[in-house]
Amino acid sequence: MWAVRVMAGADRHELEGFSIVTTDSYSQLDEDPAFALHRGGKLSVESSVDVTDRAGLSLAYTPGVARVCDAIADRPELVDTYTWKSHVVAVVTDGSAVLGLGNIGPEASLPVMEGKSLLFKQFGGVDSVPVALSAEGVDDMVDSVARMAPSFGGINLEDISAPRCFEIERRLQEQLDIPVFHDDQHGTAIVTVAALRNAARLTGRGLGDLRVVVSGAGAAGVAVTRMLVEGGIGDIAVADSKGIIYQGREGLSPVKEEIAAISNRAGLTGSTESALNGADVFIGLSAGEVAESVVATMAPNAIICAMANPDPEVHPDVAHKYASVVATGRSDFPNQINNVLAFPGVFRGALDVRATEVTENMKLAAAEALADLVGPDLAADYIIPSTFDERVAPAVSSAVAEQARADGVARL
Amino acid sequence: MWAVRVMAGADRHELEGFSIVTTDSYSQLDEDPAFALHRGGKLSVESSVDVTDRAGLSLAYTPGVARVCDAIADRPELVDTYTWKSHVVAVVTDGSAVLGLGNIGPEASLPVMEGKSLLFKQFGGVDSVPVALSAEGVDDMVDSVARMAPSFGGINLEDISAPRCFEIERRLQEQLDIPVFHDDQHGTAIVTVAALRNAARLTGRGLGDLRVVVSGAGAAGVAVTRMLVEGGIGDIAVADSKGIIYQGREGLSPVKEEIAAISNRAGLTGSTESALNGADVFIGLSAGEVAESVVATMAPNAIICAMANPDPEVHPDVAHKYASVVATGRSDFPNQINNVLAFPGVFRGALDVRATEVTENMKLAAAEALADLVGPDLAADYIIPSTFDERVAPAVSSAVAEQARADGVARL
Repeated sequence: MWAVRVMAGADRHELEGFSIVTTDSYSQLDEDPAFALHRGGKLSVESSVDVTDRAGLSLAYTPGVARVCDAIADRPELVDTYTWKSHVVAVVTDGSAVLGLGNIGPEASLPVMEGKSLLFKQFGGVDSVPVALSAEGVDDMVDSVARMAPSFGGINLEDISAPRCFEIERRLQEQLDIPVFHDDQHGTAIVTVAALRNAARLTGRGLGDLRVVVSGAGAAGVAVTRMLVEGGIGDIAVADSKGIIYQGREGLSPVKEEIAAISNRAGLTGSTESALNGADVFIGLSAGEVAESVVATMAPNAIICAMANPDPEVHPDVAHKYASVVATGRSDFPNQINNVLAFPGVFRGALDVRATEVTENMKLAAAEALADLVGPDLAADYIIPSTFDERVAPAVSSAVAEQARADGVARL
Repeated sequence: MWAVRVMAGADRHELEGFSIVTTDSYSQLDEDPAFALHRGGKLSVESSVDVTDRAGLSLAYTPGVARVCDAIADRPELVDTYTWKSHVVAVVTDGSAVLGLGNIGPEASLPVMEGKSLLFKQFGGVDSVPVALSAEGVDDMVDSVARMAPSFGGINLEDISAPRCFEIERRLQEQLDIPVFHDDQHGTAIVTVAALRNAARLTGRGLGDLRVVVSGAGAAGVAVTRMLVEGGIGDIAVADSKGIIYQGREGLSPVKEEIAAISNRAGLTGSTESALNGADVFIGLSAGEVAESVVATMAPNAIICAMANPDPEVHPDVAHKYASVVATGRSDFPNQINNVLAFPGVFRGALDVRATEVTENMKLAAAEALADLVGPDLAADYIIPSTFDERVAPAVSSAVAEQARADGVARL
């Protein structure tokens, strides 16, 4: 067997023994290290079994493989044991809401999806495959993903625009017996709730003591709100571009009607700014700046999670003047709210016990496990573990697996 | 970063640092080495870039990745350079015609698709992903694959039943600007034509001197026939379960009508057995046995390619009594007609030059390159290279890439 030498960087495609076909040069772009790193993509598929001779080939492929196929046809549950299905996740997008870039389409979203796969493997040991779909309608997305479900142990939805993302996720989870998890919603929610739980503890309060204002009613805003309500928050008001969402406001989408129904017990009707007057917590999940004069009106011991990237809604330097605890989405400030703290462990745990879904309890268990890791070192600049804390994925994974069993959705 | 240790065999799922969840034991099945090898599946997805710290992460993922996404949104052709799209193939099936097992469904087909991915990597350095779809109709298959095409550099269709496979492939290739290649058709055809070309040469004839009988009008039989006609075969008659296909035979499917139109110039109307009387070549691509008394009626210097697996239509011991050259699909006899001689190199070559399709000429070029490798060592027991001949994929790849350029379907 001649070797296929997979090389790093620009030359990765030069395979020993093949005529070398050089790709067009984009040397100018490659002066940016992000481009240089992305040249040739970030993933490869490798064989995890060693097949180097005729005997091995006759087991891994015909005729031996036929016996394994036959057995699975007979006893479908064997697919989890004798294929990679139970440990490979599809990272599915339509490219409609990629990072802060908006609807850039499936091809342009691929670098993010590959990055996600890289993080899945590196942080959770989870194999995953980017599947960027050219699909416009909700029906097309649901049908496409449902049809490919036999090949995967879980579906991670990614960067799909709201409100389509809610229906797509709901319908897929109803149809499929594998976990469907929209990370922009639940990953963000899990980490935010963990951070908020610790911030409350640090300032001597419980979630029930807090009045929260969420800026942004997209995927993340909705999921954070639902999870905080589930977790027993005191009160929570959610603002979209038209201000606070309240029952009876004209033109609410079904999802925002649900938000109106479960939130805003105080009946606020004005702007984000007015709602912040006396609020304990600000959670920023949209672009846009909050003026210092508004931040100044928040309650004592305020908690500010300003997660817009790259520019937080409130700059930490300003936030610290008025708040006890400040978190952002950025890695260059303390308390980074980063999804990578959640999704690798959530899927690892769900896959390990062959969970059929990720329940609300499993998400809360993930948030608790994440918060608990901080332990006695809890401090204003340490309410959430570092993304490179090696304890994170195993702790989240264990908590999620255990809760899946408690919830009766584990098949193992 | 804690290490994810990917282990071989039964323990592959035990990840260092995680709570170990043991899978159910299937120790009895695992006494079969094919099952033991398949435990946990045969593939993994790996990161091909090294990201071990915050700086690396900020290039491979946010915020750096956004610049790459932006550039692709601006200049779509950059997707080939800065993602893995240009070197990853989807191995797509609906599980409707898996090996000789028939319609066993998508899940049970996965071991074969994983095996295919393993061969793609090992023999061609091509990354590939098994996508077994739960899709019944032709429309559903076409739509599903077309929608996922933004993520892949090529589509390898696999184990899809005839005649659906013909329409699925044709419609997909019409819609997509990446190669769509049904390996059961064209892989088999390429290797068969290469073998036949060398067998003819060995016996002092050209393809134009040969009268051929093909048994089987499924995916492989149709593709072999088309390619032999394209390659200038003397005459060729194709038989299905109702006997030789001829123009005017009642109830012919559209594909068989085409076969009737391009083959059987002699106007044969009877059984496979009667057609073999005086024939130069037998190509067996279906189950079923051909009696020795029938083999005995073939022309002198007959060529027999009996490719049914595991039981060739004519056992080599019998075939050798009457034929000058004998080939089978089995690895334990000389002259194994095995698709793995074709598809890794075909895709490697097509991907390397970003071909938009695999033309007829490219398939013929692959067959010629394969035949030429045998060179001066040509002999009755060596008409086709070994599957483990390291020269095969590079030679096929080069020929395919060069022909793609000559045909004007290369984008690089």
